[in-house]
Amino acid sequence: MEELSQVKQQIKSFIQDCGDRRSLELFDLLAQGKMLRSKLILKIAGINKETIELCAVVEMIHAASLLHDDVIDEADTRRGKPSINALFDNKTSIMFGDILYSKAFTQLSQMDKEVAYIVSNAVTLLSIGELADVELTNKFNNDYDKYFDMIYKKTASLIEASAKAAAILSNKDKEAYALYGRNLGLAFQMVDDILDITQDSKTLGKPAMLDFVEGKVTIPYLLLHQRLEDKNKLEKLYKKELIIEEISWIKQQMDETKALEDSIKLAQKLGLEAIESIKNNNNNEELVGIMKAMIERKF
Amino acid sequence: MEELSQVKQQIKSFIQDCGDRRSLELFDLLAQGKMLRSKLILKIAGINKETIELCAVVEMIHAASLLHDDVIDEADTRRGKPSINALFDNKTSIMFGDILYSKAFTQLSQMDKEVAYIVSNAVTLLSIGELADVELTNKFNNDYDKYFDMIYKKTASLIEASAKAAAILSNKDKEAYALYGRNLGLAFQMVDDILDITQDSKTLGKPAMLDFVEGKVTIPYLLLHQRLEDKNKLEKLYKKELIIEEISWIKQQMDETKALEDSIKLAQKLGLEAIESIKNNNNNEELVGIMKAMIERKF
Repeated sequence: MEELSQVKQQIKSFIQDCGDRRSLELFDLLAQGKMLRSKLILKIAGINKETIELCAVVEMIHAASLLHDDVIDEADTRRGKPSINALFDNKTSIMFGDILYSKAFTQLSQMDKEVAYIVSNAVTLLSIGELADVELTNKFNNDYDKYFDMIYKKTASLIEASAKAAAILSNKDKEAYALYGRNLGLAFQMVDDILDITQDSKTLGKPAMLDFVEGKVTIPYLLLHQRLEDKNKLEKLYKKELIIEEISWIKQQMDETKALEDSIKLAQKLGLEAIESIKNNNNNEELVGIMKAMIERKF
Repeated sequence: MEELSQVKQQIKSFIQDCGDRRSLELFDLLAQGKMLRSKLILKIAGINKETIELCAVVEMIHAASLLHDDVIDEADTRRGKPSINALFDNKTSIMFGDILYSKAFTQLSQMDKEVAYIVSNAVTLLSIGELADVELTNKFNNDYDKYFDMIYKKTASLIEASAKAAAILSNKDKEAYALYGRNLGLAFQMVDDILDITQDSKTLGKPAMLDFVEGKVTIPYLLLHQRLEDKNKLEKLYKKELIIEEISWIKQQMDETKALEDSIKLAQKLGLEAIESIKNNNNNEELVGIMKAMIERKF
């Protein structure tokens, strides 16, 4: 998409403003993402100087959060390329993240005050969500509200803020688009949680059921735990390297209790709610399409 | 000071806004600093709702930068208390830093646009300065401009921004106060660099001449290197654990070449320039006093 290269150019130009050769070098080493948030903003608000700048700000914030994530997760790769912490060290990754964050906030501070508030507040939520994600792996979490609150903050808040900010810039119904963005993020996270169980390790590019091994009690496990008579058996498998028989048992129970099926339904319900919320606005076929593609996929 | 407890209360209230129990717990574990930046802001701009909020924002930014620093330096303590990364882990320190940064930026985004720009831009400079500080320890740096640019960004930029922002809020001469803040930060860093050489390890609470061992070619070493005939001898001691004879040799050369004396003079020159810059404004006895106390101390 031509407009996405405009966003990339805008990011580069913001980084050039900083007058730091090293930052530009590091930027060139970052793996390109799919720029989901920019696509969303541009579809809602159209293409102009202001919306391209908003996209650049949001992408810089997203990139900064990934730089800090990679240090936390000790990740060697990001989107198939070596991560900055792997290429250099944690220092470089943390500080380059701080440079991207602060430059994004500097640009935000010159935009519409409501947009600036919404987007920067989403970064607070995102960081709180990251902390909560880690905290929730300390012990088996059987509290749905805690799970939901965490994925809202960690995954959905910045997508919600992007959609809401785009609606504000284009004088559309901000609450409707905020709901669309929020549910897009929530459904995206739930789909990701479900795929961790249904897909094989080859397709995932990581061991299957890694979430549970790493201590993440995601939505299918939460529903399964509620419905199992022998909860103890599931709890005993928590954070363990699973053998084939254990994997099979979990999958079988996921089927029998309909925990997996109902997790898919829950993601679909969120998606349909989002579609409902924006259907009265014009030209939203693409937004409806994005959501449908996500919730109507094969699991 | 009563007003500093108002600032602390404001910070707490901002963190309470975030609605995250864990963030409040972590905040209570942070060691209290001297709040130099707040004192400066309140001395320039007086005490009112707006200035107390600016102080809280700047202190949160400073605390966030220290949280990230402690991860980078693998520091176990901060101001005599265990650091957050030592008490918990790097994740907690990085993410709590991100929470403080983003909450500070969120509040900034609702303030005067010029103030928001200046303060958030200082965080970019600060982070670039941190990266440069690390980069400059890769090999012996004999470039004065690089040293000066690094300490400006790393140490002086946020103090400069605090003073300038305070002047804007109180309708004073922003350039004069910016210069005062900048030179206060630069002189502070140079004094710190000098004390690393002149003070014993007991007073410093760390080994003497640690800067040079850690690869930091600070202002006295830069001047010494320029003036030494046998530059090679100094370069050979770079990043080495120094024995007593080597420490004595460096100190002797610092005296003979007047590298130390001239470093002190340089810090004093910056201080006097700063005093000159604000002397035509009223009620600046305290600011003059702060600067004098710093540059007229015994070394």
